[in-house]
Amino acid sequence: MKNTGNKAVVLLSGGIDSAVAAAMARESGFDIYALTIRYGQRHAVELEAAARVAAALGVTRQLVETIDLRAFGGSALTDTIDVPKTDDTARIGNGIPITYVPARNTIFLALALAYAETVSAGDIFIGVNAVDYSGYPDCRPEFIEAFQRLANVATKAGVVGRTFTIHTPLISMSKADIIREGHRLGIDFAMTHSCYDPAPTGHACGRCESCLLRKQGFDQAGVPDPTSYASFD
Amino acid sequence: MKNTGNKAVVLLSGGIDSAVAAAMARESGFDIYALTIRYGQRHAVELEAAARVAAALGVTRQLVETIDLRAFGGSALTDTIDVPKTDDTARIGNGIPITYVPARNTIFLALALAYAETVSAGDIFIGVNAVDYSGYPDCRPEFIEAFQRLANVATKAGVVGRTFTIHTPLISMSKADIIREGHRLGIDFAMTHSCYDPAPTGHACGRCESCLLRKQGFDQAGVPDPTSYASFD
Repeated sequence: MKNTGNKAVVLLSGGIDSAVAAAMARESGFDIYALTIRYGQRHAVELEAAARVAAALGVTRQLVETIDLRAFGGSALTDTIDVPKTDDTARIGNGIPITYVPARNTIFLALALAYAETVSAGDIFIGVNAVDYSGYPDCRPEFIEAFQRLANVATKAGVVGRTFTIHTPLISMSKADIIREGHRLGIDFAMTHSCYDPAPTGHACGRCESCLLRKQGFDQAGVPDPTSYASFD
Repeated sequence: MKNTGNKAVVLLSGGIDSAVAAAMARESGFDIYALTIRYGQRHAVELEAAARVAAALGVTRQLVETIDLRAFGGSALTDTIDVPKTDDTARIGNGIPITYVPARNTIFLALALAYAETVSAGDIFIGVNAVDYSGYPDCRPEFIEAFQRLANVATKAGVVGRTFTIHTPLISMSKADIIREGHRLGIDFAMTHSCYDPAPTGHACGRCESCLLRKQGFDQAGVPDPTSYASFD
């Protein structure tokens, strides 16, 4: 799917997944319009990571949009609920985690759709993953399919026959697969941030769900993990 | 559909349509969680109208969420594009107006869904209208149906079998019908605001699409129009 010169909106969080999704979009020939959302996340340090990734990938434009999801609450990522910590990877992935943010990917894709429509991009990339994040309803293929159907009736572009495609290149990949693919594409993972509950220094906690999946992914991929963990300092 | 004690999220803009939709939700027995969006609209005076309507209807809670859609641009309501003016109602309603805001109702419903999920409401009311706003793709029944399908795969609530219903009680009503219904429900329309391009005094311009539809609606409904128009001062 070489589409040289075509525009794609890529949701870019600063984590590994969206960095790899963006690099895959770039490799497919898209000009990248990165969209980063400041939503009141406790790990706002990931916004700096997103800016580093955007610069390293040479995106055409990065837009940072602010929406305060703390007003709704209901998640450990945006509320005063504690982020769960464990040393046991086997304990994660059962049920829907407390780090689920109500309707977050619906909101993010809606904003990406607005951005895509205004810059005349027909393609939207989101780094969702249904393997490691099987507990999140809005990381599943049926969610993405329903959103794509919606996008094509929701917009002026859709009405005049310019359709939108929602790309989820990582949806069936394990974290190790994603890290291998990013490694192949030359991503410096030291730029990225995954931890849900970083120390004031910005160091990763090493024990939240997101840190555990990241560490395990590097181990399994056989790629050195460049992350600075607070607990290992 | 008397649902005494059930919760509904109602998108409340400060205009006539959402005020009538909210009053209809209240008459059906719902406790109302009003959601008002400050999106960078040039007619931000409508936010004061929304607060007046929320108070008059006795809503359980009104949440005002800020999201700056000016960052995307592409609409006369959020950009530096002029709001079109005319004295001829027959000239409006052809094609998609420049006052269309890309993906606005998708974004608004996504936020309403997040709010509904966190307060455990299964019902969402939006005052869209496919008659007078036939040019807006995101006011059509097929858009609402696609969003309702999405809502039920997007959320934790949907996964555990608590379904969402998107109510559009005004979708087939003319502006005159809506005004008659609001009049029956005791709404004081002087609280509401419709103008897309109000004077610095807050007075309605009387010549934008929204003012024209409002004036025509009061005329056809035979209900006195309490609006203060700048051009009539």
